[in-house]
Amino acid sequence: MTPARSAGPGTAPALVGSVLVIGTGLIGTSVALSLRRAGVDVLLEDVDPANVAIAIDAGAGRSIGPADVPSVVVVAVPPRHAASVLAQASLRFPSATLTDVTSVKGRVIEDAVAAGADATRLVGGHPMAGREVSGAAGARSDLLDDRLWVLTPLPESGIEHVRQVHRLVSTCGAYPVEMTLDGHDAAVALVSHTPQLLSSVLAGQLATADEEHVRIAGQGLRDMTRIAGSNVDMWSDILAVNAGPVAEVIERVADELARTAQALRDLADGGHGSAPADLVEAVLAEGVAGQRRIPGKHGAAPSAYREVFVMLADRAGELGRLFGAVGEAGVNLEDVRIEHVLGRPSGLVALFVRPEAGDALVEALGERGFDVRA
Amino acid sequence: MTPARSAGPGTAPALVGSVLVIGTGLIGTSVALSLRRAGVDVLLEDVDPANVAIAIDAGAGRSIGPADVPSVVVVAVPPRHAASVLAQASLRFPSATLTDVTSVKGRVIEDAVAAGADATRLVGGHPMAGREVSGAAGARSDLLDDRLWVLTPLPESGIEHVRQVHRLVSTCGAYPVEMTLDGHDAAVALVSHTPQLLSSVLAGQLATADEEHVRIAGQGLRDMTRIAGSNVDMWSDILAVNAGPVAEVIERVADELARTAQALRDLADGGHGSAPADLVEAVLAEGVAGQRRIPGKHGAAPSAYREVFVMLADRAGELGRLFGAVGEAGVNLEDVRIEHVLGRPSGLVALFVRPEAGDALVEALGERGFDVRA
Repeated sequence: MTPARSAGPGTAPALVGSVLVIGTGLIGTSVALSLRRAGVDVLLEDVDPANVAIAIDAGAGRSIGPADVPSVVVVAVPPRHAASVLAQASLRFPSATLTDVTSVKGRVIEDAVAAGADATRLVGGHPMAGREVSGAAGARSDLLDDRLWVLTPLPESGIEHVRQVHRLVSTCGAYPVEMTLDGHDAAVALVSHTPQLLSSVLAGQLATADEEHVRIAGQGLRDMTRIAGSNVDMWSDILAVNAGPVAEVIERVADELARTAQALRDLADGGHGSAPADLVEAVLAEGVAGQRRIPGKHGAAPSAYREVFVMLADRAGELGRLFGAVGEAGVNLEDVRIEHVLGRPSGLVALFVRPEAGDALVEALGERGFDVRA
Repeated sequence: MTPARSAGPGTAPALVGSVLVIGTGLIGTSVALSLRRAGVDVLLEDVDPANVAIAIDAGAGRSIGPADVPSVVVVAVPPRHAASVLAQASLRFPSATLTDVTSVKGRVIEDAVAAGADATRLVGGHPMAGREVSGAAGARSDLLDDRLWVLTPLPESGIEHVRQVHRLVSTCGAYPVEMTLDGHDAAVALVSHTPQLLSSVLAGQLATADEEHVRIAGQGLRDMTRIAGSNVDMWSDILAVNAGPVAEVIERVADELARTAQALRDLADGGHGSAPADLVEAVLAEGVAGQRRIPGKHGAAPSAYREVFVMLADRAGELGRLFGAVGEAGVNLEDVRIEHVLGRPSGLVALFVRPEAGDALVEALGERGFDVRA
């Protein structure tokens, strides 16, 4: 388990002054909650007063009053509004440090400056936090703990404002990583926006497929289409704002798929020598190489974790008995995966532990009568 | 949990005679083990005698002797050898029912008949079983329990041979589903082979990407590239044998991605009215519709399961305490998912339960001091 990193004054330099969070959705309210946890005075604002009320109820701070002058403004509104809200905030608070949490940076920050935001005080940001729930009600004070938080200072950004945003990020329990605007947008196009579109296009093929074809789907298709179920409006918005960088990656993927399809056609026709087979093999091998670069994956990283498989009997409470036994054995689980059969979880559970803990776990579970397949 | 369905004589008509399994890898040995479980006389054969020895040690049966005459022959060899092995088996055992477990059917079965296999005795098969381990050592007597097992009888297949293969499948604890050769191959091209290639091509984009870009990868990319780590030789083989049907789906996907990339270019340029945005939104919406058709997925199926989130404290044994509490509450878990942060599991655990059990679970966990985010 990841330590729940509490960023008190001992671990991060204290922020000076109050922070205004504009937009009390999931991310904005979570930022506010983690700042409150560290004792920061947090001011809240949202176009919808009901959202602010929920955030205040959750302990995220207080409504901003006419006399309040925030030191930092965090803009946490949807991508298509972020630039204008940043520009307005720059005018309203002429000395405040300005940042945002938008998942696209170039268009947003450039449009904000074009609309009048003071570039010397503007340091864009993007916390890499999950979205499995949304809205203020889903916010958590620990959502940002141990997350990477990309910051995109401009050449004009004053060093004190850059430092202030670094402090904000550390106070929230996250790790700041600096990138250029273009670097950030190319990165999220590759690791976030392209996977989303691929998942959607793949899942889209199922929309009109025969029922009996969909029925034999396995875990691979399930994993590949999980994010296709994401919110359409949110993703339309993100893709529109980062359209250029995403188009570039999608074009590369489409070209490579078209070349692969041609190689498969050649293979199906026979002849053409070994070139088509070599191309297909190269595509698969390149995928293995790329997959290995992803940090912390399990599955393909047996050197990092040992997998211990346990087949559970079909009795109520077996999962509880299993994890109880793991705890009694004094073994720390790094991860758990439950295999699925016919769309339902099967009795097969994969336990991921540090390699040196594997033998002890196998022995302890065997002694307790579990059906272990190490 | 799925019942571990034991297919004894009471639940499935008994097979008459012995079964020869040719190829004692993961699937072949698992078929043999599940047949042995039901008391069937199982004969084993493999080009590598060491594989047969492992399978015999595991209790999968005995080596075939010169006097043995199997009633059924199950060919469980790699796709590129399956047709010739089926044809040879047809000549060696002139009255045996012939089947295989190859993941591609058209090319294999047609080539087998062309090479001399007796079509009246040939009923191709493909069990939809997992591959998280491979080889005889990974085989399990319950690998096929509750799995779908596609059967592809030919117009010429004799009814007694079709029935015999149905009995074989039921005896192994699986569910037979009949498809045509083309229907099967189109289905696996869509739900298995295309996802594999998309995962490989996406992961391949990471092979040469900046380290800092890969570093901000999240759970979505991790899910989308998991199967890209699969065995290259095995998949080269599968894709070559099912090249035509896979090419057809990949061409559709490549075309749709190219159209989407063009729409994104138009969005980036501005202008072009609402058509590009409408196209991107339609792609995302079609993905949602397709994803909903996949049986038993969680994530996007709130109607099927309720998700209860629990934030665990960073203490050893907390997972065990959690599952113990779930067991005490008398709630049956449908699934478990552990969120990952920076590649490591975080303290956030998602418990999936039937909707009607959700409130009781939230209450029970709250009473036991867990930090529940329902």
